[in-house]
Amino acid sequence: MYRFNSDYLEGAHPNIIERLVKTNLIQTPGYGLDPICDSAKDKIRKACNVPDAKVYFIVGGTQTNYTVLDSILKRYEGVLSADTGHVAVHEAGAIEYSGHKVITIPEKDGKVDYDRAKAYLEAFYADGSWQHMTRPGAIYVSHPSEYGTLYSKKELASLRTLCDEYGMRLFLDGARLGYGLASEGSDLTLTDIAELCDVFYIGGTKVGALFGEAVVITNPSLGEAFFTEIKQHGALLAKGRMLGIQFDELFTDGLYEKIASHAVKLAMRIKSELKAKGYSFYNDSYTNQQFPIISKEKLDSLEGKVVLDDWGPYGNKEDNMRLVRITTSWATTTEAVDTLLSLL
Amino acid sequence: MYRFNSDYLEGAHPNIIERLVKTNLIQTPGYGLDPICDSAKDKIRKACNVPDAKVYFIVGGTQTNYTVLDSILKRYEGVLSADTGHVAVHEAGAIEYSGHKVITIPEKDGKVDYDRAKAYLEAFYADGSWQHMTRPGAIYVSHPSEYGTLYSKKELASLRTLCDEYGMRLFLDGARLGYGLASEGSDLTLTDIAELCDVFYIGGTKVGALFGEAVVITNPSLGEAFFTEIKQHGALLAKGRMLGIQFDELFTDGLYEKIASHAVKLAMRIKSELKAKGYSFYNDSYTNQQFPIISKEKLDSLEGKVVLDDWGPYGNKEDNMRLVRITTSWATTTEAVDTLLSLL
Amino acid sequence: MYRFNSDYLEGAHPNIIERLVKTNLIQTPGYGLDPICDSAKDKIRKACNVPDAKVYFIVGGTQTNYTVLDSILKRYEGVLSADTGHVAVHEAGAIEYSGHKVITIPEKDGKVDYDRAKAYLEAFYADGSWQHMTRPGAIYVSHPSEYGTLYSKKELASLRTLCDEYGMRLFLDGARLGYGLASEGSDLTLTDIAELCDVFYIGGTKVGALFGEAVVITNPSLGEAFFTEIKQHGALLAKGRMLGIQFDELFTDGLYEKIASHAVKLAMRIKSELKAKGYSFYNDSYTNQQFPIISKEKLDSLEGKVVLDDWGPYGNKEDNMRLVRITTSWATTTEAVDTLLSLL
Amino acid sequence: MYRFNSDYLEGAHPNIIERLVKTNLIQTPGYGLDPICDSAKDKIRKACNVPDAKVYFIVGGTQTNYTVLDSILKRYEGVLSADTGHVAVHEAGAIEYSGHKVITIPEKDGKVDYDRAKAYLEAFYADGSWQHMTRPGAIYVSHPSEYGTLYSKKELASLRTLCDEYGMRLFLDGARLGYGLASEGSDLTLTDIAELCDVFYIGGTKVGALFGEAVVITNPSLGEAFFTEIKQHGALLAKGRMLGIQFDELFTDGLYEKIASHAVKLAMRIKSELKAKGYSFYNDSYTNQQFPIISKEKLDSLEGKVVLDDWGPYGNKEDNMRLVRITTSWATTTEAVDTLLSLL
Repeated sequence: MYRFNSDYLEGAHPNIIERLVKTNLIQTPGYGLDPICDSAKDKIRKACNVPDAKVYFIVGGTQTNYTVLDSILKRYEGVLSADTGHVAVHEAGAIEYSGHKVITIPEKDGKVDYDRAKAYLEAFYADGSWQHMTRPGAIYVSHPSEYGTLYSKKELASLRTLCDEYGMRLFLDGARLGYGLASEGSDLTLTDIAELCDVFYIGGTKVGALFGEAVVITNPSLGEAFFTEIKQHGALLAKGRMLGIQFDELFTDGLYEKIASHAVKLAMRIKSELKAKGYSFYNDSYTNQQFPIISKEKLDSLEGKVVLDDWGPYGNKEDNMRLVRITTSWATTTEAVDTLLSLL
Repeated sequence: MYRFNSDYLEGAHPNIIERLVKTNLIQTPGYGLDPICDSAKDKIRKACNVPDAKVYFIVGGTQTNYTVLDSILKRYEGVLSADTGHVAVHEAGAIEYSGHKVITIPEKDGKVDYDRAKAYLEAFYADGSWQHMTRPGAIYVSHPSEYGTLYSKKELASLRTLCDEYGMRLFLDGARLGYGLASEGSDLTLTDIAELCDVFYIGGTKVGALFGEAVVITNPSLGEAFFTEIKQHGALLAKGRMLGIQFDELFTDGLYEKIASHAVKLAMRIKSELKAKGYSFYNDSYTNQQFPIISKEKLDSLEGKVVLDDWGPYGNKEDNMRLVRITTSWATTTEAVDTLLSLL
Repeated sequence: MYRFNSDYLEGAHPNIIERLVKTNLIQTPGYGLDPICDSAKDKIRKACNVPDAKVYFIVGGTQTNYTVLDSILKRYEGVLSADTGHVAVHEAGAIEYSGHKVITIPEKDGKVDYDRAKAYLEAFYADGSWQHMTRPGAIYVSHPSEYGTLYSKKELASLRTLCDEYGMRLFLDGARLGYGLASEGSDLTLTDIAELCDVFYIGGTKVGALFGEAVVITNPSLGEAFFTEIKQHGALLAKGRMLGIQFDELFTDGLYEKIASHAVKLAMRIKSELKAKGYSFYNDSYTNQQFPIISKEKLDSLEGKVVLDDWGPYGNKEDNMRLVRITTSWATTTEAVDTLLSLL
Repeated sequence: MYRFNSDYLEGAHPNIIERLVKTNLIQTPGYGLDPICDSAKDKIRKACNVPDAKVYFIVGGTQTNYTVLDSILKRYEGVLSADTGHVAVHEAGAIEYSGHKVITIPEKDGKVDYDRAKAYLEAFYADGSWQHMTRPGAIYVSHPSEYGTLYSKKELASLRTLCDEYGMRLFLDGARLGYGLASEGSDLTLTDIAELCDVFYIGGTKVGALFGEAVVITNPSLGEAFFTEIKQHGALLAKGRMLGIQFDELFTDGLYEKIASHAVKLAMRIKSELKAKGYSFYNDSYTNQQFPIISKEKLDSLEGKVVLDDWGPYGNKEDNMRLVRITTSWATTTEAVDTLLSLL
């Protein structure tokens, strides 16, 4: 049986496993204060072209989102997000748990839209009661978004402008960043992202690692005590080198983009072949997540052969169609895709 | 100049002031543990027909909302509210500050609508990821709502059913409760409210007191350490008898409903006379808040004579109309209303 | 019966009551944005000699402590306090509720001692694990302390130095500040306090007001959104002018110090006469709180005549002595003190 | 160079690494909802003799402490801990960050002492102000403690009694539990611990795993939504099977106790040989952590050869002695110990 229901179904890229095996009995200090982490951080700084950025490794995505946001928001600020944003929906209220409101605006293609954000901010500060309301202190974007969509350089730059205008920080959740960088749907490079955002992270969990997200803080006024904040949020890994090992491997010889590229290519093949077969799609995603509309009947027929991610009914009830997510990853095989396509 | 821009513009009803003067030099224990508070609590229990309810006094509305919600929600639960609810918009994120998400659903007449709430809950628990999301632990309603609208007994009972079905508590914000009870737009009595809700409060600040809200906890499984929780939330008044004095007066000889009734009558007069003059209204409010649509020109012409609450542009830009809130209170005089009506 | 068990047993100074009565039906905007509050703030700025300070009024002491500390501490910082400090013991965990650790050091005369604080800070930063620990971000002092003791100007200045050296803020809880200013036991003036502290507050609740504390923020880098933070902490009073009225009266014609002086004089009389009668004292307090050691037998004999504050057993069990707090206030009468002294 | 400065210096036991390699490309659902986790949970339930207990895996220790405590404490409760407890000192204020006070009592042998805890609780509830204070809702113990000391079955049972008497829960931090179970210094078994505690965890990070702590909730009234709470605290691992794999291996063929036993034996050898050489010890530890007193001179002489954990000066300044922690682990070799002993 082949699973396409998410991009964290397997372990890690073999290079990482090999390195884990090789380094297993070496003794290093804990908490990421080891030479392997140092090496990984250097490689990331180079890849992003930000020699002075602070880099930290954190185990998971929700953990990273709430640790970073709690660090960069003032106590009375909230974060502006698309209403479909991961922080708004799927983090069990972790952001609110840390004391901050997630201020949602209607998504557009799964993204924060400049015009909608601008309209929100204008209305907010025009409201006579704004001092009784939660002040937006940051914009949260995910790239790719939860819907596989991508920001163009121009779009991200426009949000940067908005942040500057309204005294906000720009934070990019890159849980699937590799798949964005490897896609032809966006012109954003790591350098662009590092230049435009105050903080962002490079996702490992969904792109070849067992776990791990690399937080890059480019705004020098932020994160002055981020190590302590990671600890305070329960997010400091004792054997921190596990994170260093993984990112060191991912940023050696372009492995990160290479394996992401593999996944995106397979996703593009799925997309074009399904389109050719007459399937329609929820949106036009250029990344490793594809959202075809599939009949319930067809979906049921796959049982025991391939697992897709059923997002629920779509369109008129009598049509009995479902919105489905098909996800490829660095580990997806051509054989699996062949099987999937032959079944659909 | 007459102000109609809110219902907390003056001090307190003369009976309260008189009692404050008379008791000023009496010595009593602090923190509400005095005989005047005891008397007030008894009167409230009687008025609500709940001899065993816990009653506590808290200074302000936001304070009450966030202390109560934090007490009755489990750590991982959020509160369901209309998107126009006070807790969702105008409390500077106090609920989130206490760690809980405000889960908003689109308001209907400024209220939580049974069908919309039901649909939300059904979809929530049908979602395969619901355990990754914030569980709704309570429904928050305000009666009257921020838009002056009222729940019927049937409506509130339907929300009670929903709470029972989904393991939630029902909390009613009665910051303006007096004006609701005094209105002909709802058949809800204090006894009904006490019967249907797990917790509610009777607002004093906007109905004759200098400040103060009386929290009534009718569900015996809630509020076991509410005194300590009030203190923990910074909400315990040292000279607690100030609150007792006010509610003891308000619940003597039906003063609370009497003064609210006065305000509602004046509001009804404003409504009917403005309608007769051809003004249209945002909604059909039967309480002390009225929402006429007034031209910008007319509004400007009132400057220096009466103050209304301008809620911003309404309708097409070229029409230049504004949504306006006119509020009466226990302290509004017939003279003031005469002036207002003559000017409009 | 006369009560000496605390300094918040009565209502407010007659000037305040009179002003409340006189202004009762005047209409003003809410939330402290009224001319009376403006006037009170100006008087306070003048009294403290800080023309540019931000001044805010908050209803209660715990509320003020946790709102201020949460505002001036960074997310990962805690507050250094004597282990007897109000924030450490008697606020039901409000500081921790806001997310900050109260770091306690053993009190000396009820105060934060320079040498002990210095030793703590040196040890803290010498510890290889300090980044895994809560960083001290502020020193909390109360003046007078919970034990009626006072900081000298030199002592407060030394803590200022410590704050500068270790990047901390200095916050003074002045819940009983009037009694400290009126005492001969300290050379600290309001001007000194304003000069040495980053933030402090002038207590009203215990010094002549019904309620209210005036927060003075002298460090211009702090409190940039303090209005919103007050709201967020549930601490914004709708009819804010109630606070303005009280402080405006207290800071007219030196009323604040005058009434505090009255209380301190009576306390000094109690102290000297009890000493003359052979009573020993827990410490040497020069303020309105006195701590004599009284036999259980004697204490019992007072029942129904005067109420003192029994702080529990003192010394050897067989001696059956109790540590007792006797508190005078602006409202204590000579007659009450005569009675007390005749009974003891 | 050999490091003895902590027990998390290496990777994982070879069995775990092998299993990671072997399962690497298998596809499983995320979040611990996979058959490997199920198997590991079953083995743990069996080992603890609690067929109905809830078992969850969490990545790290601080994370586990603050997620569990926040779950089992009511909103207004704090946790009672020895002043040397990990939650009190070395978690960067994570417990306070979650809103709960850590109430400390002086340690005895690094442990919570029954008499001291009892005295605290009696005094607490005898204090007239206890409702203004943080109510103790749980006792936190670590076994072994931060000082390598152990609770006897009788000691732990006495704390259980105290918890029952005062309505508290008993939580045992077993970050180093293996080393406690393998020691001859305590008669506590896994079954005893499961019987006496409401919640405890079995540490993996320091006992053979790359990371991971297994939380066992034996009190059926607790943890009803623990999965969601883990997510809310940022502690849910996407590829949850990583945790399952590790605990499944550790609980196969007694591996967990076997490797812990190895470490303890080496520690006992270090202890007895150092004693024979005339070294004195800070305390009498029967676990993998030993605390000899070593001269600064001697310590300096080890540089570049072995790394010990210097806990700072000990005794009189002129003696120039240091309190040192020597830690063995499952990965410590006889060769390393030989070298250490030959150097000391």
